[in-house]
Amino acid sequence: MLFLDSLAGKSTARMPVWLMRQAGRYLPEYRALRTKAKNFLSFCYTPDLAIEATLQPIRRFWFDAAILFSDILVIPDALGVNVRFVENEGPVLEPVSADAIKGLSPARALSHLAPVFAAVRGIRAALPGETALIGFAGAPWTVATYMIEGRGGTDHEKSRAFAAAQPEAFAQLLAVIEAATIDYLIAQIDAGVNVLQLFDSWASSVPQALRRQAVFEPTARIVAAVKAKAPNIPIIGFPRGIGLDLARYVAATGVDAVSLDQSVDIFTARKVLGAHVTTQGNLDPVLLADAPEAAMASARAIMAAASGMPHIFNLGHGILPRTPIEHVERLVALLRGGA
Amino acid sequence: MLFLDSLAGKSTARMPVWLMRQAGRYLPEYRALRTKAKNFLSFCYTPDLAIEATLQPIRRFWFDAAILFSDILVIPDALGVNVRFVENEGPVLEPVSADAIKGLSPARALSHLAPVFAAVRGIRAALPGETALIGFAGAPWTVATYMIEGRGGTDHEKSRAFAAAQPEAFAQLLAVIEAATIDYLIAQIDAGVNVLQLFDSWASSVPQALRRQAVFEPTARIVAAVKAKAPNIPIIGFPRGIGLDLARYVAATGVDAVSLDQSVDIFTARKVLGAHVTTQGNLDPVLLADAPEAAMASARAIMAAASGMPHIFNLGHGILPRTPIEHVERLVALLRGGA
Repeated sequence: MLFLDSLAGKSTARMPVWLMRQAGRYLPEYRALRTKAKNFLSFCYTPDLAIEATLQPIRRFWFDAAILFSDILVIPDALGVNVRFVENEGPVLEPVSADAIKGLSPARALSHLAPVFAAVRGIRAALPGETALIGFAGAPWTVATYMIEGRGGTDHEKSRAFAAAQPEAFAQLLAVIEAATIDYLIAQIDAGVNVLQLFDSWASSVPQALRRQAVFEPTARIVAAVKAKAPNIPIIGFPRGIGLDLARYVAATGVDAVSLDQSVDIFTARKVLGAHVTTQGNLDPVLLADAPEAAMASARAIMAAASGMPHIFNLGHGILPRTPIEHVERLVALLRGGA
Repeated sequence: MLFLDSLAGKSTARMPVWLMRQAGRYLPEYRALRTKAKNFLSFCYTPDLAIEATLQPIRRFWFDAAILFSDILVIPDALGVNVRFVENEGPVLEPVSADAIKGLSPARALSHLAPVFAAVRGIRAALPGETALIGFAGAPWTVATYMIEGRGGTDHEKSRAFAAAQPEAFAQLLAVIEAATIDYLIAQIDAGVNVLQLFDSWASSVPQALRRQAVFEPTARIVAAVKAKAPNIPIIGFPRGIGLDLARYVAATGVDAVSLDQSVDIFTARKVLGAHVTTQGNLDPVLLADAPEAAMASARAIMAAASGMPHIFNLGHGILPRTPIEHVERLVALLRGGA
């Protein structure tokens, strides 16, 4: 597969391309499909719906990789935390206390997630042989912030305060998420995914004093545990907003590739990472949504910057729901050498 | 002054210290004073109140620098934009359209800001000779995000979309803010400030394609214009979340010093910056609020990391309103060699 060749650092005939959240609300067929489940988690846990949502963007755009349709918050849900997705507001969770953390157990999580693995099997069976299937999970810090704060956020002051004031409970929480995530990723591989991505979407908010404990070490253990079982499955890390620690993240965790958000200068990233690390991403999703000419110019600049180096074309963050489909078509044509 | 010596790169007997938002809600005397004005902007524009708020933390803790009590949003207010501060919600502004931007004029801004300069004169007259007075402004991108979004935020998608879809209006907006900011900072110097800090609190959200236009170039022009009038006034930049671009920011803008938030590894920062740039900040405000032992340990680690290099002790972000005063007392004692 072109996608796996690029992740292996091989030079490829063209740059592979997929888009974060490519299965999602910018597609009318996704919006129609979504009405068939009463809530977002049911949608994720109904294999036929998750399979169809995953395949929709592949049929339209022939991306080089499909990504399992799911959510990083299936892990807290599988651990027994009450998780809801509220329209126009995002996820709402029952915030965990130190006592509640003691009661969390990853033991039953896998059976709760059985429909996800059924979806993976169905997707892999339906996908063309040349299309890679990406499985994924949230990294422990990012999942922990949702569990502590009870919702999304950005500076995660409550999580930082929890870590400072209740260090044992915080360590326990990270450990439970880590254990559940390892089982979850290995089960995704057993069901047929070819690649994994670890989303540390809130790496930006981790204070320096916690970076080792909350980012580098748990991610390194997850990568090592997965590699021990499946040495040939490449792992892409996405430590969004990791800043000056980008190279340290890659060296400390052992990920095979690293996804760059739109704030990163790709030349600087290449300089600090060295030529052997595959990079991914970097195009501003706002450009693709609102300024197609600027998006195509920026895409060409990324392709030129990454020329001769392994790079997977992608956005710096998920595709925006308002993105016109024609903009995606133009982008894919550009990547395939047609524009 | 110890503070200016450190900014000049001289070795000093001890590390100077101040705290962002040191004049603020964690102080009972501030909360009492605040009731004397009907709203937050009136408070900022009443010289006696702004003077007293600025001096309160100096009397308590003998910080090495006072910072003018004001807000970065006095610039949009002075440009004629409707700015309100809503309790427990933060600032609310009338979002600017491309047409409204054409109507903005920095010409009358300075006279609107006369009470700020009166406050500066009063503060400088009242401060001990060894205490530096810091003036400040928001950097253009950060101020522009509030004017475009109408409120705070973090990913500033609306601002990025505005820049992509209406590049001329966006450039005009940055130019108006830049011009008003230059006038404002020079007038602060004329009134008696000894140091300036430029808060680019949302540098994190600037996509790579806009960094030159929205961060490096306007900041460089502001620094150059201020230095042309007042070559001896040091300027501290605070490009919060600038990530891999930290060294580029310092090189491109000409600031004398750079403030580091709590996510930055100070050793890595020193490595990329070189030894001649004064650094500031880095202590997680959450530790000072919630975990005093961890805060003191972290403060000692920062002091050790910066030993032999010019560093101004500070937090990575503003002091939190819930911070106990005794924690600040312990921190100051530590910095003064008493603990």
